[in-house]
Amino acid sequence: MKKFVNKAEDFVPEFMSGVLAANPDLLEGDLEFQMVKRKDRPVDNKVSIVQGSGSGHEPAHVMAVGPGMLDGACQGPVFAAPPVDACYETIKALATPAGVLVLVNNYQGDRMAWDTAVELAQAEDIKVEQFWINDDVAVKDSLYTVGRRGVAGNFFVMKACGAAAEEGKSLEEVMAVAEKVNNNVRTMGVALTSCIPPAKGTPIFEIADDEMEVGVGIHGEPGRERTKITSADEITKTLFDAVADDLPFNDGDRVALMVNGLGGTPPAELYVLYNKAAQLCEERGLTVARNYVGEYCTSLEMAGASITMLKLDDELEAYLAAPAQTATRIF
Amino acid sequence: MKKFVNKAEDFVPEFMSGVLAANPDLLEGDLEFQMVKRKDRPVDNKVSIVQGSGSGHEPAHVMAVGPGMLDGACQGPVFAAPPVDACYETIKALATPAGVLVLVNNYQGDRMAWDTAVELAQAEDIKVEQFWINDDVAVKDSLYTVGRRGVAGNFFVMKACGAAAEEGKSLEEVMAVAEKVNNNVRTMGVALTSCIPPAKGTPIFEIADDEMEVGVGIHGEPGRERTKITSADEITKTLFDAVADDLPFNDGDRVALMVNGLGGTPPAELYVLYNKAAQLCEERGLTVARNYVGEYCTSLEMAGASITMLKLDDELEAYLAAPAQTATRIF
Repeated sequence: MKKFVNKAEDFVPEFMSGVLAANPDLLEGDLEFQMVKRKDRPVDNKVSIVQGSGSGHEPAHVMAVGPGMLDGACQGPVFAAPPVDACYETIKALATPAGVLVLVNNYQGDRMAWDTAVELAQAEDIKVEQFWINDDVAVKDSLYTVGRRGVAGNFFVMKACGAAAEEGKSLEEVMAVAEKVNNNVRTMGVALTSCIPPAKGTPIFEIADDEMEVGVGIHGEPGRERTKITSADEITKTLFDAVADDLPFNDGDRVALMVNGLGGTPPAELYVLYNKAAQLCEERGLTVARNYVGEYCTSLEMAGASITMLKLDDELEAYLAAPAQTATRIF
Repeated sequence: MKKFVNKAEDFVPEFMSGVLAANPDLLEGDLEFQMVKRKDRPVDNKVSIVQGSGSGHEPAHVMAVGPGMLDGACQGPVFAAPPVDACYETIKALATPAGVLVLVNNYQGDRMAWDTAVELAQAEDIKVEQFWINDDVAVKDSLYTVGRRGVAGNFFVMKACGAAAEEGKSLEEVMAVAEKVNNNVRTMGVALTSCIPPAKGTPIFEIADDEMEVGVGIHGEPGRERTKITSADEITKTLFDAVADDLPFNDGDRVALMVNGLGGTPPAELYVLYNKAAQLCEERGLTVARNYVGEYCTSLEMAGASITMLKLDDELEAYLAAPAQTATRIF
């Protein structure tokens, strides 16, 4: 296993401890519930934005906590939903009179955990609602999902809701923002390699040296097809067309374009994909108003990438441009 | 080859085109010389900071161009020095009466190219000096280097010189900053896997499934030893002790601590390493005033990491905290 790991069962608490140690002014956490929150939250008059899902997708989710993004997040084991009590404690820790919005990527395990936690919290008169994200166009039903999966488009939902909440919008208004983003965002990914969860010690799926999985899920779920690896440009076109045809994105649209690395693909390759994706936008008459190239939602060390597009209007573009700060940074 | 590539010979110009396409307001480039520069530079009264080396280390070097960092950079093919004419044209494009400082990572190929280019420019009365970075403590002489190699510590030299130049410091003063950072920065890395340059199509070295290369160079050069993979904590201690004992870093020192990913290692694993490195700093009586966890100097898709420490004083800490902007960003 070519990984930096101590004991497999310590992997998640140890990386979370690292995130906390690196951000002592910004974040505080409760490792019992694998939860991280903004040190300066909750505050009464602001809706709290919360998320939580399996680990292995970093920077989602605990590394997306900070001003203008999430107020808090909890994580389960690698590729497994957080336990109900972690979800419940996270809601409780961020509860405010203005309310809590839980953004849930559409996977059965996550939905079950959050459904129960939200019910428990509501029974205690905590104001909390949830919203399900399902941006992955690859397949309708999947190994762990009924309906479409929630993947890297998640970033845009967090970012826009985070900005709307900072502006003082109500819970209903922030939910409307989540719905607007989710309705206008589409993603598809491709895997060149598999990946190895530390506790499993073996790859989550097998793939030949000359093969790729088109439309892969972020836990290695099967996508649309297994094919021979083609050129970067052909791969980009396959992903881009699937995304662009689905909404669809039409001549004259303004978009945010994301090329997301799945963990094992280095920056230069992501920019090769971006280069082609930007050309395809131009050919389709789309204006790229904002772009995002890097790691936003990974699958451990999987070599691969996804393309996400969000159709913008003035409101969404302003939310994306609003300031934000998280553990993930360069300088 | 599990990579996003079109024709191998197009890899570098295509990723550079992607970087330019993603940053139209910030950057402009000349693909003939594989050069990228700030759109708003040069200006007469500011020292220009320039760098250039082989590709495959992104975000170094062209993705490190921007306000408060590099004014320009040129890149050679993957893991090969840029040609003399590219270096010469880059100096010329950024030349100002205040002068140009070329920051060269210590490799023979890079030094030869920049030596000649600087001589050519000086013969034309362009004010230009170069400074050699050699922060890698692993080995004294190496496959492509006499003396120590220049690796991820390079980031701190660029950042501090970039900030000093923005402040209006003279060429001599900015060179003194470069020297101060280089004298106080130390790095060592480890590789768990090899990597495949697109034009080569095969790994740059072979390594068994249970082995790691301790003290690896960023082009896969041999380090101190080839051993069995140990725990993340043991690996961190090996790298940390080599770095900390070398300067040495002593009780009471204030430091910047970087955990740099080599391209194929995902964020969570880097934070596992950071978690231990921060503990080791505490045990040694070092205060981590600033921390950096992410990809700063990669080796294509190599799984691995390096640890860099810079001993700070008030001047260097202020330079690191100064604002900067490059192609590499999250929001």
